[in-house]
Formats: sequence, structure tokens, C-alpha cells
Amino acid sequence: MTTNKTFVFDVYGTLFDVHSIGKACETYFPGKGESISETWRQKQIQYTFLRQAMGKYAPFSEVTRDALRFAADLHGRPLSLKEEDRLLEAYQSLSLFPESLEVLSHLKEKGHTLIIFSNGDPLMLHPLLKKAQITNYIDHILSVDTVKQYKPTPAAYHLILDTIEEPRSDIVFLSSNGWDISGAKAFGFTTAWINRSAQPVEGLHQPPHYEYSTLNPLPTW
Amino acid sequence: MTTNKTFVFDVYGTLFDVHSIGKACETYFPGKGESISETWRQKQIQYTFLRQAMGKYAPFSEVTRDALRFAADLHGRPLSLKEEDRLLEAYQSLSLFPESLEVLSHLKEKGHTLIIFSNGDPLMLHPLLKKAQITNYIDHILSVDTVKQYKPTPAAYHLILDTIEEPRSDIVFLSSNGWDISGAKAFGFTTAWINRSAQPVEGLHQPPHYEYSTLNPLPTW
Repeated sequence: MTTNKTFVFDVYGTLFDVHSIGKACETYFPGKGESISETWRQKQIQYTFLRQAMGKYAPFSEVTRDALRFAADLHGRPLSLKEEDRLLEAYQSLSLFPESLEVLSHLKEKGHTLIIFSNGDPLMLHPLLKKAQITNYIDHILSVDTVKQYKPTPAAYHLILDTIEEPRSDIVFLSSNGWDISGAKAFGFTTAWINRSAQPVEGLHQPPHYEYSTLNPLPTW
Repeated sequence: MTTNKTFVFDVYGTLFDVHSIGKACETYFPGKGESISETWRQKQIQYTFLRQAMGKYAPFSEVTRDALRFAADLHGRPLSLKEEDRLLEAYQSLSLFPESLEVLSHLKEKGHTLIIFSNGDPLMLHPLLKKAQITNYIDHILSVDTVKQYKPTPAAYHLILDTIEEPRSDIVFLSSNGWDISGAKAFGFTTAWINRSAQPVEGLHQPPHYEYSTLNPLPTW
């Protein structure tokens, strides 16, 4: 009996700490790095939802720049194009969460199939994964940019089924974003919510199958 | 030469102050009414975007209950069904902004066509408008519930064109929500952003045609 499973990992907030960018933000916003990082992330996600509804897809790297610009404007300190570029470059050096590397390594050793599935377009996603030296553990790197539909649309999640032939419920979908988990659950995946910031379950009537505070419990599956 | 125009008003946040609910929230969350109101509104809007992307439409009254539940959970004080019902009932008695009534009355006197266009389903929208005694000034009350597509989808904005036969750019669309203005601008309406909380323009590359801090300048159009 094989116990090999397919694990699908979200990237931003799940494997990587998006708020590790706060330090880089401090350079241009002294004492406000954390606040900028919070607004930046919040608008980045919101703009994917809004562009999805408007039918105006733009790659995540552009959305990320637009969100940074809003955050800077909100804090009354607009950035030059060069300053924006520097912060966006720093977004390709986000820190992994402390356990990410070891968990990926353990799961890979056990023979599981590991997939990365992200809103990030290749332009920003690949340098991040390469710098963090995790590509060796990953079987497939998937980006919604292929279908130009953001999570949590069914069209986005379907990309995974186009890549591996497995029943949806056999696929374990991991994300720290509650809304991503809701979307993946509605789509039919088995979901494990990495609830890093101890949030309540989203009010979307799609509670996760499993809930952990970090990725650490995964290798014992 | 006729100068009659069609003005389309958003409801929540534009004519009515959604945060006037904060007082009612104080009953169950002493000292936290404002914070609850903020989270409630934020999740209410977010859930419309998420349900839109997931293809899981639910009426705004349900979404509003789900968002309230999340806000209560986040603050560690879950509500009973009866308490939820009371706060949702209070949502039908939101306060108009100080100038709303006079502006509607002036525009109507001048012979303009006034339309209300809201995410709110009739169940929650009609009692609110009736209690505030503004229905006499309004020519058409439109809800996205008719098409079951939330703003900012083109399908939602198209409801307005199904109601009045006018070129899009002759229709003046008013909202305090920057993202709603972005959607309406992308759709082709003439947009006036009632930027009540002095926010930066949303990073969606659809800046408003006009920007005011209240509805007061409208009667001078």
C-alpha cells in the first residue's frame, strides 16, 4: 500500500513570511516598516480580488507594485520609481518561515509529491524560490498567471488538476490564508489551514479539514 | 437645452454612515464598538469579493451576518443568534450622512433622475431607505441581487443600463468606496468619488473624474 500523497503549498504567508519585508520598508519609512508591510499585503490581496471581479487581470508583480504605491501614499511618503524597484527586489528575498525548509525536505524524502501553487507570476516567484534554495524539493511550480485568474476562482485551482491526475479530495492543499483555504475547500481539495496568526475561520461556510499553527505537523501525516 | 442628468448613488458608506452601527455594537462589546464596526465592514466587503471569485453568491444580508460573526469571533465574544439578529436589525437604521437628505432633495427639485444602486439585497435595503424617508426622492432602487453578481463586476454595473437608456458616460456614478469608483470608471460611467476618509486613489489605474469629501458640491453641477 502506497501512502504517497500530493501536497500543494501556497507561497506568500505560508512558506514565506511576507512581513519579513518590514525591515526593508524601514529604510524609507523609519518606525513604520511594519505598518507599511501590513497595508502593502492587505492591498496586494484586495487588488487581486478586485481585478478578478472587474475582469482586469494584471500579473501579481504589477499588482504588488500598485499595492506598495498605495501604502506609501497612505503614509504620506510617495516613493520614487527607483525606491519602488528596490522594495520590489527585496520581495524576492522574503524569509522562509523557520520550519519551511525542514518540512519540505522531510516530505520529499518520504516520496510525497510537492507542488507550489501561487498567485505570483513567474517573474517574481521563480527568483524567490531559487534564492531560498527550495526548488530541489518541489515537483511542480504552478502560477495562476498561466490561466490569468486569481485565487479563489475555481479556474485557478483547476490548474492543479491539469498538472497531476488525482481525485481532488486526495490532494492536500496548504495555505495560511483563510480565504484561500475556503476556496480550495469549495473546489473539493482536502485542506489544512496553517493558521499562523490565530484568526477565526472565515465566514464563507467552508471550514478547513485540518488546522495547524505551523507546517510542523505535516511530516507525521 | 436640458441639463437633466442621471445620478447613481451607492448606499453603504455613501448616503449612509455604516459606522453609525458602532453605537449598537457597544451594547455587546463595551469599549470596542468602533473596532467591531470596522472589522464588520471590512469583512462584509471582502466576503462579497471572495464569493464573487468563488462563484458562490449569497445575498448581502447573509454576507453581512457572516461578517458580523467573524468580527465577534475575532474579538473573542461570540454572539447568540438573537444578539446577531438585533445588530442586523440595527443595520436597517443606519444614520444618513448629515448632507445626504438635502442633496437628494435639491437634485430631485432640479429634475434630475436619481438612482440607488447597492450590493444590498431588497430584504435589508428597502427597510433602510424607508426608515430614512428618502424613497420619495429616488426614481429607481436597484440591487445587485437581481443579477447575483457583486460590484465591481461589469455585470452588476450593467443593471443600470438595463434600467435607463443613456450613454454610460452621461451617467454620474457616486460612491465613497474607492474600489467601487474604479469599477464604475472601468465600466465607462462618469465617476465622482466621495472620499469621506481622505484615502489615496486605489491602485487600480482607474482614477475618478471628480473627487469630493462630501456630497455637498453636487447640487451646483
